[in-house]
Amino acid sequence: MKALVYHGPGRKALEDRPKPEIRASSDAIVKMVKTTICGTDLHILKGDVPTCTAGRILGHEGVGIVDAVGAGVTAFKPGDHVLISCISSCGKCEYCRRGMYSHCTTGGWILGNEIDGTQAEYVRIPHADTSLYPIPNGADEEALVMLSDILPTGFECGVLNGKVAPGSTVAIVGSGPIGLAALLTAQFYSPAEIIMIDLDDNRLGLARQFGATQTVNSKDGKAADAVKTLTGGRGVDTAIEAVGVPATFLLCEDLVAPGGVIANIGVHGQKVDLHLERLWAHNIAITTRLVDTVTTPMLLKTVQSKKIDPTRLITHHFKLDKILDAYDTFGRAAETHALKVIIAA
Amino acid sequence: MKALVYHGPGRKALEDRPKPEIRASSDAIVKMVKTTICGTDLHILKGDVPTCTAGRILGHEGVGIVDAVGAGVTAFKPGDHVLISCISSCGKCEYCRRGMYSHCTTGGWILGNEIDGTQAEYVRIPHADTSLYPIPNGADEEALVMLSDILPTGFECGVLNGKVAPGSTVAIVGSGPIGLAALLTAQFYSPAEIIMIDLDDNRLGLARQFGATQTVNSKDGKAADAVKTLTGGRGVDTAIEAVGVPATFLLCEDLVAPGGVIANIGVHGQKVDLHLERLWAHNIAITTRLVDTVTTPMLLKTVQSKKIDPTRLITHHFKLDKILDAYDTFGRAAETHALKVIIAA
Amino acid sequence: MKALVYHGPGRKALEDRPKPEIRASSDAIVKMVKTTICGTDLHILKGDVPTCTAGRILGHEGVGIVDAVGAGVTAFKPGDHVLISCISSCGKCEYCRRGMYSHCTTGGWILGNEIDGTQAEYVRIPHADTSLYPIPNGADEEALVMLSDILPTGFECGVLNGKVAPGSTVAIVGSGPIGLAALLTAQFYSPAEIIMIDLDDNRLGLARQFGATQTVNSKDGKAADAVKTLTGGRGVDTAIEAVGVPATFLLCEDLVAPGGVIANIGVHGQKVDLHLERLWAHNIAITTRLVDTVTTPMLLKTVQSKKIDPTRLITHHFKLDKILDAYDTFGRAAETHALKVIIAA
Amino acid sequence: MKALVYHGPGRKALEDRPKPEIRASSDAIVKMVKTTICGTDLHILKGDVPTCTAGRILGHEGVGIVDAVGAGVTAFKPGDHVLISCISSCGKCEYCRRGMYSHCTTGGWILGNEIDGTQAEYVRIPHADTSLYPIPNGADEEALVMLSDILPTGFECGVLNGKVAPGSTVAIVGSGPIGLAALLTAQFYSPAEIIMIDLDDNRLGLARQFGATQTVNSKDGKAADAVKTLTGGRGVDTAIEAVGVPATFLLCEDLVAPGGVIANIGVHGQKVDLHLERLWAHNIAITTRLVDTVTTPMLLKTVQSKKIDPTRLITHHFKLDKILDAYDTFGRAAETHALKVIIAA
Repeated sequence: MKALVYHGPGRKALEDRPKPEIRASSDAIVKMVKTTICGTDLHILKGDVPTCTAGRILGHEGVGIVDAVGAGVTAFKPGDHVLISCISSCGKCEYCRRGMYSHCTTGGWILGNEIDGTQAEYVRIPHADTSLYPIPNGADEEALVMLSDILPTGFECGVLNGKVAPGSTVAIVGSGPIGLAALLTAQFYSPAEIIMIDLDDNRLGLARQFGATQTVNSKDGKAADAVKTLTGGRGVDTAIEAVGVPATFLLCEDLVAPGGVIANIGVHGQKVDLHLERLWAHNIAITTRLVDTVTTPMLLKTVQSKKIDPTRLITHHFKLDKILDAYDTFGRAAETHALKVIIAA
Repeated sequence: MKALVYHGPGRKALEDRPKPEIRASSDAIVKMVKTTICGTDLHILKGDVPTCTAGRILGHEGVGIVDAVGAGVTAFKPGDHVLISCISSCGKCEYCRRGMYSHCTTGGWILGNEIDGTQAEYVRIPHADTSLYPIPNGADEEALVMLSDILPTGFECGVLNGKVAPGSTVAIVGSGPIGLAALLTAQFYSPAEIIMIDLDDNRLGLARQFGATQTVNSKDGKAADAVKTLTGGRGVDTAIEAVGVPATFLLCEDLVAPGGVIANIGVHGQKVDLHLERLWAHNIAITTRLVDTVTTPMLLKTVQSKKIDPTRLITHHFKLDKILDAYDTFGRAAETHALKVIIAA
Repeated sequence: MKALVYHGPGRKALEDRPKPEIRASSDAIVKMVKTTICGTDLHILKGDVPTCTAGRILGHEGVGIVDAVGAGVTAFKPGDHVLISCISSCGKCEYCRRGMYSHCTTGGWILGNEIDGTQAEYVRIPHADTSLYPIPNGADEEALVMLSDILPTGFECGVLNGKVAPGSTVAIVGSGPIGLAALLTAQFYSPAEIIMIDLDDNRLGLARQFGATQTVNSKDGKAADAVKTLTGGRGVDTAIEAVGVPATFLLCEDLVAPGGVIANIGVHGQKVDLHLERLWAHNIAITTRLVDTVTTPMLLKTVQSKKIDPTRLITHHFKLDKILDAYDTFGRAAETHALKVIIAA
Repeated sequence: MKALVYHGPGRKALEDRPKPEIRASSDAIVKMVKTTICGTDLHILKGDVPTCTAGRILGHEGVGIVDAVGAGVTAFKPGDHVLISCISSCGKCEYCRRGMYSHCTTGGWILGNEIDGTQAEYVRIPHADTSLYPIPNGADEEALVMLSDILPTGFECGVLNGKVAPGSTVAIVGSGPIGLAALLTAQFYSPAEIIMIDLDDNRLGLARQFGATQTVNSKDGKAADAVKTLTGGRGVDTAIEAVGVPATFLLCEDLVAPGGVIANIGVHGQKVDLHLERLWAHNIAITTRLVDTVTTPMLLKTVQSKKIDPTRLITHHFKLDKILDAYDTFGRAAETHALKVIIAA
């Protein structure tokens, strides 16, 4: 079968690989229908993710059709249309029972990382009963690709951890795909203000279309002042970090009001300065989270009931045999204005 | 009247000052019965608290008897025995209505800081109806001095923010008075383990008497390893920072288990390194808080029903005219083994 | 001044009464601008509210302008435009500190009940600092009349107690003004389905305009079956009772899914049967609440940011000297299609 | 093997039955070491539980040793010492993912009810990975029999649902085994008062030994007055119903303070009167729950760390071949003073 294979930092290829087989009784083999590329895949290609070694098929998102199941799988059978979660969870370990699927002792984020992933014609899914979701009849399958990772990540790490509430004020630092996913799902809770902050005016324009009530271009280094002005000097109840570098986290420290939350989504490569000499008395919380995908059933219901339209995040379409073009388009997002690209198997 | 007055960094004196008078209709004048000294008073004397200027009477804790009330005070009358909260709250502003009395727009921590405090024969208490608490008949008033600041601080900033729960594991970094206050109140929730960490073996011995299930002397720089060993490699569900320096906060970053909380109590004078390159995916929360004293009624009930004995924190007694000796004893705690000192007016 | 006075069951009159005066230092006198009539006023007129005695000026809702304040009032001054809460709260007692303003030991629902109310040219408001809210510049004051009682009641007793959540299913039994207030505010949380149930097709049509995703006319006695069909046999996550008679509460018992909530808003005049022989094992909660109006600041923000338009509840306008006509119109709502009627002073 | 078999209302026998076998890949066969009898077993014998049909082996509690496992079982192997949960949960269905194991679509309370149970030499446990718990080395296995049902039931349905908190007041109506289990686990949260109510002075004496701060014998019909007196006229924050008849539920309605919770544990056979004409405005919650056993890991930690001693509930010991005597002793608890009886296989 065709698969996009990582060959070490900076190197990838579309090549032929054997079709995966059932290894454990809880496995399923899924024939991919649509997948996509994540910012994390670009991190892997930069060599930032040491758990992902050369020879790995990339990809941890997508929808497909069950091709085969192990003896212990009871919730799915061949032919079922399924949504693949980026997080594999056994449903049995201490962490899974607490709803922390991200820290499953035999799962977590392993797809397209420690085991072969979804940018291929077939993928093996461990712990299938608790890592796949049935696709309702008549659902827009392309929309559901956004539920593998990006929407639960924006929602769980940003919106839920950030305690967004009716009438509250929210700032989202970073208007890329994940910041926009937080923007879309924040609106489930009817905050009074969502202020979107980025360096790129095009992305800020998009943010306004997606529901931001205010946008701030931070290239002048005065974003904190601008937000203070917009909030009557208070700062925001929720500051969502959706970039992953020290400067944007520091901006969140400046934005958050007393009693507020800094909800980190960004994947950070280095430490940041935490200004406790000021914040110790501000009654704030800072949260971190690798998405658990515990809200996937909830998000499916919001999509089915049309409370959210995930297809707004999709900008480009490719066939699997053109996946190198898809990577190119996604990697030059500032020029191509790509958000999420769909790759059809 | 006699009062302990701050005269700038390193300088204080017991001197005669005029008795305070009612200034606003919500004020009360309280005749002090017993007060105490807080670690924060030592910070002021080092010059670390710029809001506290020369000429200020120090002290923000104590019990007393109402001497006079303003026209708007309805909950208290002269002769009432009262507990003084370290936090003044109007009960009306946005923050007070949210239970964040620490950020009251006309109150907060002002006693012995921005206005004259309790280390005197009399004190003026603004917003008296919502900043004083009636002392139940027959209560041990000396015990209640511990409810002005230290017990609510340990409980709210450490135990409640840290989400201590039955069967959970807790580490408290710092076995001084505030760490011990967290230790006492953590036991309200029956955690399985409370590991106390300090550099001073005497204080660790005290911690074991106060209910710590394990103690770790951190002077060898291997406290994190020791805690990992004690917790089967997991780390703790709750790490309470009760010192206020970068090294102890960093230790908390090393101790906290995935899904856990770092609850900061310490007053920090400088920034700390936050290792987001590791913690971004650990599903943790970091909380900061200036005590709100919203739990004072709850704590009063636990004292009255003998679920906690605050007098265990009291090591020394002085008369007000010997308050300079009290400061000396409290300031040399490593030698004197002082925790809280009671000063009788 | 003119005032609508209750004279015992079935009797009311518009008559001249002396203008109220400041009695306590926390009082304010408010010149009424706009008020309205509540379903509870009709209950009083039926003789159902024994705490309301003959001679009482009715009304507990409205907006106005501060005319005079007592010596202890600090948050308001004459000339301020204010929203009057139906609940008077001292902000000091045990219940107020817990956010249960409805049970304030010297307040609660007393306006137009135990003390004279707002259907007059002037009203005395006790505990003014914590029972009035400043009206932001440029706000639509008529819209804010809906924030005195009906919107916080629908929101707190129905939506918050009912734990409405993104993707959840909600049934609201009763499509009168209070049921519609619950319907409007439930949408703050983006539930997947809101099923509105009533006997009156006109009101159900209105419900669909206001955002109901499904409506069920219950006159055939088969509403529970209809809801089960609409929810795949499960029942609803949240059943909101917005009528106040045994039959509608029983319907909620039949509608609620395992793990769900029955949130009662209705004012009940008699006991109901609770079928614990079936429900003991269903993991449900039943909640009751007299509105606390703790969410008034939050609701003000949602109105100011246009997340909700309360004027949709307003169907008729009258002058104060025509308030008897207003009562007549409101009392014959089935014919007049009245929801809320505005009465201008 | 020997087994206690139900033969229809009033009829049971100890007889020989074939040893159970693995039927599904997620099954385990457990060799019983110790089991016990539950009040629910007596209900079955009265014919009150229609899902339990003649020919069924009774029992849903106990500890044992794994004898065999199906192909899909990964968490256990033959020889493992295990605690059996009274609730079987698949860990995969919508309810299990929400932590409502009691409503598992292929599990729930089925042991000794819809499938053969634990009062036998061997038992088949479905969904073994998520329905058994490993027994830590050195644990007191007899103590852990109390974790199959009675302690999680008292804790989840009574204490957690009842929101018992430090300093709060609790009343428990019914001082039988389940009420005493609630009493023991309520103390995890350090309430100020736990008032135990029963008709039997012996059981009330036991309650005082187990930690009740007050006891009330309700045979004079004045228990509500007594509790009001003990609580300064307020009533209690938490009223736990641990009997299951209308009179005791009505008593809870009379006991609960504004803002409080009635947490039902009792298994009810008939409807009760809910006095909404009084309670609609009292801001209370009423909760029902079939135990989910989600707290079993937490409870195991509290037992291991000696925060609770479950053996205090154990009054008698029998061998399996004397189980009819055990039933007789347990059934005449008023005379025998039996709480829980241990039956050794």
